[in-house]
Amino acid sequence: MSSTFGTLLKVTTFGESHGKGVGAILDGCPAKINLSEKDIQKQLNRRRPGQSKLTTKREEADLVTILSGVERGKTLGVPIGLYVANKDQRPDDYKTMQSIPRPSHADYTYQTKYGIRSASGGGRSSARETVGRVAAGAIADKFLYEIFRIEIVAWVHAVGEVEASHVDEGVISREDVDQTIVRCPDGPAADKMVQLIDNVKERDDSVGGIITCVCRNVPPGWGEPVFDKVEAKLAQAMLSIPSTKGFEIGSGFAGTRMFGSQHNDPFVLKEGRLGTTTNFSGGVQGGITNGEPIVFRTAFKPPATISLPQTTVDFEGRKTVLEAKGRHDPCVVPRAVPIVECMAALVIGDFALRQQFRQL
Amino acid sequence: MSSTFGTLLKVTTFGESHGKGVGAILDGCPAKINLSEKDIQKQLNRRRPGQSKLTTKREEADLVTILSGVERGKTLGVPIGLYVANKDQRPDDYKTMQSIPRPSHADYTYQTKYGIRSASGGGRSSARETVGRVAAGAIADKFLYEIFRIEIVAWVHAVGEVEASHVDEGVISREDVDQTIVRCPDGPAADKMVQLIDNVKERDDSVGGIITCVCRNVPPGWGEPVFDKVEAKLAQAMLSIPSTKGFEIGSGFAGTRMFGSQHNDPFVLKEGRLGTTTNFSGGVQGGITNGEPIVFRTAFKPPATISLPQTTVDFEGRKTVLEAKGRHDPCVVPRAVPIVECMAALVIGDFALRQQFRQL
Amino acid sequence: MSSTFGTLLKVTTFGESHGKGVGAILDGCPAKINLSEKDIQKQLNRRRPGQSKLTTKREEADLVTILSGVERGKTLGVPIGLYVANKDQRPDDYKTMQSIPRPSHADYTYQTKYGIRSASGGGRSSARETVGRVAAGAIADKFLYEIFRIEIVAWVHAVGEVEASHVDEGVISREDVDQTIVRCPDGPAADKMVQLIDNVKERDDSVGGIITCVCRNVPPGWGEPVFDKVEAKLAQAMLSIPSTKGFEIGSGFAGTRMFGSQHNDPFVLKEGRLGTTTNFSGGVQGGITNGEPIVFRTAFKPPATISLPQTTVDFEGRKTVLEAKGRHDPCVVPRAVPIVECMAALVIGDFALRQQFRQL
Amino acid sequence: MSSTFGTLLKVTTFGESHGKGVGAILDGCPAKINLSEKDIQKQLNRRRPGQSKLTTKREEADLVTILSGVERGKTLGVPIGLYVANKDQRPDDYKTMQSIPRPSHADYTYQTKYGIRSASGGGRSSARETVGRVAAGAIADKFLYEIFRIEIVAWVHAVGEVEASHVDEGVISREDVDQTIVRCPDGPAADKMVQLIDNVKERDDSVGGIITCVCRNVPPGWGEPVFDKVEAKLAQAMLSIPSTKGFEIGSGFAGTRMFGSQHNDPFVLKEGRLGTTTNFSGGVQGGITNGEPIVFRTAFKPPATISLPQTTVDFEGRKTVLEAKGRHDPCVVPRAVPIVECMAALVIGDFALRQQFRQL
Repeated sequence: MSSTFGTLLKVTTFGESHGKGVGAILDGCPAKINLSEKDIQKQLNRRRPGQSKLTTKREEADLVTILSGVERGKTLGVPIGLYVANKDQRPDDYKTMQSIPRPSHADYTYQTKYGIRSASGGGRSSARETVGRVAAGAIADKFLYEIFRIEIVAWVHAVGEVEASHVDEGVISREDVDQTIVRCPDGPAADKMVQLIDNVKERDDSVGGIITCVCRNVPPGWGEPVFDKVEAKLAQAMLSIPSTKGFEIGSGFAGTRMFGSQHNDPFVLKEGRLGTTTNFSGGVQGGITNGEPIVFRTAFKPPATISLPQTTVDFEGRKTVLEAKGRHDPCVVPRAVPIVECMAALVIGDFALRQQFRQL
Repeated sequence: MSSTFGTLLKVTTFGESHGKGVGAILDGCPAKINLSEKDIQKQLNRRRPGQSKLTTKREEADLVTILSGVERGKTLGVPIGLYVANKDQRPDDYKTMQSIPRPSHADYTYQTKYGIRSASGGGRSSARETVGRVAAGAIADKFLYEIFRIEIVAWVHAVGEVEASHVDEGVISREDVDQTIVRCPDGPAADKMVQLIDNVKERDDSVGGIITCVCRNVPPGWGEPVFDKVEAKLAQAMLSIPSTKGFEIGSGFAGTRMFGSQHNDPFVLKEGRLGTTTNFSGGVQGGITNGEPIVFRTAFKPPATISLPQTTVDFEGRKTVLEAKGRHDPCVVPRAVPIVECMAALVIGDFALRQQFRQL
Repeated sequence: MSSTFGTLLKVTTFGESHGKGVGAILDGCPAKINLSEKDIQKQLNRRRPGQSKLTTKREEADLVTILSGVERGKTLGVPIGLYVANKDQRPDDYKTMQSIPRPSHADYTYQTKYGIRSASGGGRSSARETVGRVAAGAIADKFLYEIFRIEIVAWVHAVGEVEASHVDEGVISREDVDQTIVRCPDGPAADKMVQLIDNVKERDDSVGGIITCVCRNVPPGWGEPVFDKVEAKLAQAMLSIPSTKGFEIGSGFAGTRMFGSQHNDPFVLKEGRLGTTTNFSGGVQGGITNGEPIVFRTAFKPPATISLPQTTVDFEGRKTVLEAKGRHDPCVVPRAVPIVECMAALVIGDFALRQQFRQL
Repeated sequence: MSSTFGTLLKVTTFGESHGKGVGAILDGCPAKINLSEKDIQKQLNRRRPGQSKLTTKREEADLVTILSGVERGKTLGVPIGLYVANKDQRPDDYKTMQSIPRPSHADYTYQTKYGIRSASGGGRSSARETVGRVAAGAIADKFLYEIFRIEIVAWVHAVGEVEASHVDEGVISREDVDQTIVRCPDGPAADKMVQLIDNVKERDDSVGGIITCVCRNVPPGWGEPVFDKVEAKLAQAMLSIPSTKGFEIGSGFAGTRMFGSQHNDPFVLKEGRLGTTTNFSGGVQGGITNGEPIVFRTAFKPPATISLPQTTVDFEGRKTVLEAKGRHDPCVVPRAVPIVECMAALVIGDFALRQQFRQL
């Protein structure tokens, strides 16, 4: 298992969905940053279950405790321990599923890899693991803003077939995003998304979606080619989030259908330094930031755990019909918005720390 | 700069496009693998420029020398040094471009990051850097096949608007792929692709494309969640290839428009162990392989260097028109096929080495 | 700060001496190992303050809680969270020292590096940080014994000028070592050591010492040359323990005064495989284990915090006399014995996981 | 095998003693450093065989070629490829030794680990591997001096029982060290050392020694506690050099016999910042530099390959007498001086790059 991420800004997460609790250690955070639990709680609240009718009914306040690394409201430059106790575990919900691996879930693969797995729920493969990422990422987010005025904002771009339009990447804020419970800043689209998720939920089914994220004010010259290009580490970070199946930056897959003469971003002079008139590059060229907003999208599949009966086999290979219990989201994207932001902050924060006297 | 990739199977590349040469060190390759330059040359030949009318005219035989790590035809378990001399450098082609950063290329970002850049061509940001990756990846590819019968095959799925159909991921071979110079195994689509590239080339323009890759016979239980999920490391690997803008695995972005009841892959008994009837998961669940083929796609943008005049500014911000010289591919995907395969082999090879007594 | 150690078996520690608590995350532990808090507590008890008249009077039961990674008494192959609450903090003891950096302590260097430091005690530089290492190392120790019968035993070799003799590295056990409160298995030497420490304590002074450690039954062929030689990682691990100033393996510094003809360890046939008649190599050759016991020594300086008045300067450079308060050990080696064992277990455990199909 | 070292300044070495050549890739070197082969050759010349009557007769000019990373005399911030061809291989010398593992050499352990080994000489375990380290370290040494005026100087402190005295760590230079072929700046001791090595050589035997190294002008506040303390990474670096058996910093093992009241380094005001009157700490406190010279010693065993007949067994366990051929040093320390300096430079160089906005 690889529960540590980052080169200089390192996050290590721990905890299972139905164990004692979940959390993270963030090592490498600069010293003397103002930090309290309140700063972290904001993002945890946006991630927590039970926040709206669109999410699982599992009731978790997800209150974070800072175990170490902060004294008198300031970071010490040492590891910050973060802990959230689990409150609403219901291991019994999973008893009938013990012998049947849920299709498209990680029951079978964990059992095959480790020869054992968490008796209840997804254990470590559960999205509950992301509590630690969000707590740690909220700190990265804070120091990136405090030191560099970097702003990271994600929102729901699509739920199923419903897509948002008209989102201005240059000004959109988290407040804008939180105007709707589905976290889509395009009102009419948001309404349709809510309706679709409601509908899917009623049918005991689930549906996928897409999140767009923008990182503004990242200075040009950040990122570490060849293998740790900005887009490469963002791609790893996003594909490490449970339920993700795709990542694209700038023009992405649509860009493959363009000609170079359309796709190239011409340079112009902008506020004393070079900028581009279009941003098909998505803020990175050759793995290094160019000062334009970093814009990327992440694809989330429909959640695997559904209550609809599914014909499948048990671990012994015997045909059976599974009707999954447990409390699950019909669509993960509204709650995944802060997860995407926090993983982006961990990536950008690591590049911030790696960025230094590259030149005399 | 981060020119090293992998945890136990580590590749380190070096070399600039118009310097003395390019190469790689591969550390961690198992001992006693049969290996000669011929094994590596095969993939280098598929990557080399000048191999068909679709590619740049730069003439490079790209003959590899094994500098270390192999004795009497067998690997010693020690680092394998790989070197390819550059032959057809033409630094003079780049003189006029010294003062003008090519739009959507890495000239501006390298200059900003390092305060200096390769005087000619893309230096380290050039796709010529991937020679080292291909040489190293060809070795990973070989030991994965020799030890586990793992087969990795990539092909061109799309060029611009032209898409392939009818490719059987279960049987497609590199020989099939190499039937056409564009490396698309769907004949009629291949014809259209060739025509499109020809056309684009004539217009001094460029076009993007998509590569699909399948990894067959990867045993179930491989991969390292949480942050080094198979899909996460593949995503990093693919997005680290020059000109890439997107990655998706299994159902990918299209999967976001599906319902869970459609998307879930039901289990069945297959040859004595559990398999699935569909493969929307793309061979991984929870970051761990499930024994089904790993299938993923990578998006390549249209090459940035085109000879068409482009209105832009120079490094000083003065408006100018750039007509890029140099010899460049109108479309990178035909030559990128072995690069995708070799990066996939490096990822899977690393997981092979990390896979071990996870359980008693 | 680098609070993570290991390649596949990774420990991450957190916590300050006078904060809420201390702990560690151990990632990479194999699945299905029997594990309970009792297994870990044993080593923590040997490390805890207040265990004998030789140690600091700080009263800490150091009871460990497993936060994650273990279910129904078995490891899941996922990160194991370990936490020990601090009980007997006395931040007030340190108030007068706020403006005076203790000589040979880390107050000055932390302040210089981070521009801030823990207001009380050593914070992160305190040996209290090693609680997390011991908790994590105790788990490595357990699986090394359960899977490979590897035995790791350390003891006090010297306190000040008093040295032990006659310790049989082949059979010495932790029970033998714990016969005396100073953890020296040579009775007469132990008596003198106790007397010396008593004496030093009365004088408000401190004294150094040496710990020897043996790792038995480590299979031949483990270790990763070139840079991660067994002796190199052991050296890093030992020199990362607070108060250490030296490391030697096998013949060590004394071996520099020998001739090759004396120093070389001749091979003989031993129980079906090659062994050596002497062990000046200390169980490693070329960075790889040879199957003989790994034997190494670590030097600990006299603790820096003493109550004797010291002439020094404050942070502003003004001359002053410091009489340090706080509760400190007059000699750290008796309590450092389990720390050395646990760090050795983390090193050997990591090599165990990295050891695999190096050859076909 | 782990042939890569460093977090941001990464060196990767390759090559066997009797293969085509040896070399290294240095990644992370800052851009715009003046660099030519001459800068590197200086240290390689001090390491090369055949430089005096004290060394092996193997004739190697060890001329280095820069393969990449430097253009018009300046570093580009990209990987620097370094290559030295082997010229004087004599694989035949090793034929008779193929079936007999040399005592205290790595033949047996490599064979056990990899199931195969270099047919001639030590292959990768040979000190010839350090050519790559010296080439890469010479570059680190250069930028540390150019940017920070850091000076790293090592010398032979002891050969066998002969010890140097009276070396002023504050002013000693490489020129001083190179006054004698044994690289001991204490003339009378140097004479005795030369005599001892001559004598040992005549007897076909070998002898060990100790090297002291000082790093001056390292700014205070460098280093990464907890696990990457300056002393911990130096210890790993030194113990990764072939033939080393011990490391100590500052007071080292002798410091264990001191009392705290003697050992503590009192602070005083020195040139506007805090310094210490003594330096038993060896320039580091709590793993972080304090601005005083970093002083450490490394123990080298007598070389294992001697021509004196040795009673041992072959790989099958049959008793035999080995008279080793090959050309070997009777004592490695004179040639190891630049290796120690270059490894120290790689360690300090990495900390330089990791040192940055730790505080606002």
